[in-house]
Amino acid sequence: MKKLINDPQDVVSEMLQGLVAANPGKLKLIPDKRIVLRSDCPIKDKVTIVTGSGSGHEPDQAWLVGEGMLDVACPGDVFAAPTMDAVYEATRVSASDKGVLYLVKNFSGDRMSFDMAREMAEADGIRVETVLVNEDVAVEDSTYTAGRRGLAGAIFVYKIVGARAEEKASIEELKELGERVNANVRSMGVALTSCTMPAKGSPTFDLGEDEMELGVGIHGEPGTKRIKMKAVDEVVNDLLERITSDIPFQRGDELAVMVNGLGGSPISELYIVYRKVDEYLKGKGMRVFRSYVGEYVTSLDMAGCSVSLLRVDEEMKRLLLEPADIPLRIL
Amino acid sequence: MKKLINDPQDVVSEMLQGLVAANPGKLKLIPDKRIVLRSDCPIKDKVTIVTGSGSGHEPDQAWLVGEGMLDVACPGDVFAAPTMDAVYEATRVSASDKGVLYLVKNFSGDRMSFDMAREMAEADGIRVETVLVNEDVAVEDSTYTAGRRGLAGAIFVYKIVGARAEEKASIEELKELGERVNANVRSMGVALTSCTMPAKGSPTFDLGEDEMELGVGIHGEPGTKRIKMKAVDEVVNDLLERITSDIPFQRGDELAVMVNGLGGSPISELYIVYRKVDEYLKGKGMRVFRSYVGEYVTSLDMAGCSVSLLRVDEEMKRLLLEPADIPLRIL
Repeated sequence: MKKLINDPQDVVSEMLQGLVAANPGKLKLIPDKRIVLRSDCPIKDKVTIVTGSGSGHEPDQAWLVGEGMLDVACPGDVFAAPTMDAVYEATRVSASDKGVLYLVKNFSGDRMSFDMAREMAEADGIRVETVLVNEDVAVEDSTYTAGRRGLAGAIFVYKIVGARAEEKASIEELKELGERVNANVRSMGVALTSCTMPAKGSPTFDLGEDEMELGVGIHGEPGTKRIKMKAVDEVVNDLLERITSDIPFQRGDELAVMVNGLGGSPISELYIVYRKVDEYLKGKGMRVFRSYVGEYVTSLDMAGCSVSLLRVDEEMKRLLLEPADIPLRIL
Repeated sequence: MKKLINDPQDVVSEMLQGLVAANPGKLKLIPDKRIVLRSDCPIKDKVTIVTGSGSGHEPDQAWLVGEGMLDVACPGDVFAAPTMDAVYEATRVSASDKGVLYLVKNFSGDRMSFDMAREMAEADGIRVETVLVNEDVAVEDSTYTAGRRGLAGAIFVYKIVGARAEEKASIEELKELGERVNANVRSMGVALTSCTMPAKGSPTFDLGEDEMELGVGIHGEPGTKRIKMKAVDEVVNDLLERITSDIPFQRGDELAVMVNGLGGSPISELYIVYRKVDEYLKGKGMRVFRSYVGEYVTSLDMAGCSVSLLRVDEEMKRLLLEPADIPLRIL
């Protein structure tokens, strides 16, 4: 294992310390619970947007905390759900008078922590609602999930709901909006390699030199099938056939498109993927409203990508273009 | 080799096609010469900013083309300089009445192409000036260079000069500004793994399971020394001792700080690096004006990072904060 780390046990704490150090005045950290939140949280008259999941998916969650997007992130250990205690504490310290909305990717451990924290918060008189994100078309049930998994399509839910929350929308409206985004987004991934967890030090699964895993999740859990390596244009075709037939997406649809790197694939390759996605969608008579190519929800150092399509309406389009002042900036 | 590609020979062309497809109306591509330029180029009364180097360093160069930064990028083959023909053509089609400024990282092949293109353009009556970037403190001469190499510190030169060019500054002023930035920035890198060129398919050099290479360049060319793997805090300390003693940087200096991923290291690790950089600099009485953590100038899929420090003055600070409308955005 070759990583830029100190003690593998300190990876999550130290990455969050680095994140907060790099964003002085904007973020604060509750170190013992490993909660990252906006410095100005809770914000009067604004529904608090909270998410959380295992670590190892960076920049997912903590890098998306800031004005116009998330208020709070609760990162668990690598590939492990945040504790109920952490989610409850996050809810308690961030709750505004308008309530707290949880945005949760559908993994069993995450759901359990958020459900229990919600019960505890409600007992304190805090209004809590939940939007589940489960847009992966690859598998119905898997290692970590009952029902469909949440993948990088969650970013669209965070962005759109976060932008509308900033406009002081009600919790009922935000919940409807988040569920509408989730209902209109579909994703599927492919892995070329496994990933290596810092505390384990060896790959979490084996994949032959000439193999790739279609329909992979974000922890390297098994997908729909293992296939021989082939040209990326063919792989993209496979992914898009599955994704577009699911809702289904149709001629005339206007889409936000995400090509999400899983951590180990260079940006050059993600754009080679986008090239084919763009060509495929145009060939089917669909229009691309806006494209997102980069790393959003990763699996540590896994090589591979996922593709997400969101059928946008006028409200979503407007909210996607609103600014978000989050750590995930480049310049 | 496991990559999301089609024919290895088409990697550069197809990534650029994807880039332009993902940025409709903003970028144009001259396919046979593989030149990427702003759609509105040349711009009257604005010095044209041109860069170019081997591919494989994405998002470097082509992803930085847009309002407020670069006008033109000339990517060569992977780890190979752009041809003189491509640079000349790029100059010819983009030249404004105020002239053309080349920003070139100091690698011998790149310099040769830009020097020859400049002669040809000058013969056509085009005013051309060059700023060389050579801020790597690790080695004086190396495989690809006479003198010091240019690393990710070049991003600061592009950003600051690009923002000032947008304000219609003269070519003399921009050249002075670029040289001032270069004189105040220093960088050094460390590699944990080699990288794999698409057309070769195997690692470009060998590094033992327990070894890391200090002072590495952006093509995996040898650095100052090969050392045993150790905790990242110690590695960062080694890098910063070398970097800060070079100008030297001093107590009271105000700095822009970049932790640049080389391609294969997850963002979580880059922030663990930043954590120590921040602590080190504060311990020395230096102030961080702004931090940049992410992938800027990569070596394909190499694991590792470089650290760059720029001593900023008031003009640089103002220009660093100006917006840049470039493909390298996330949301």
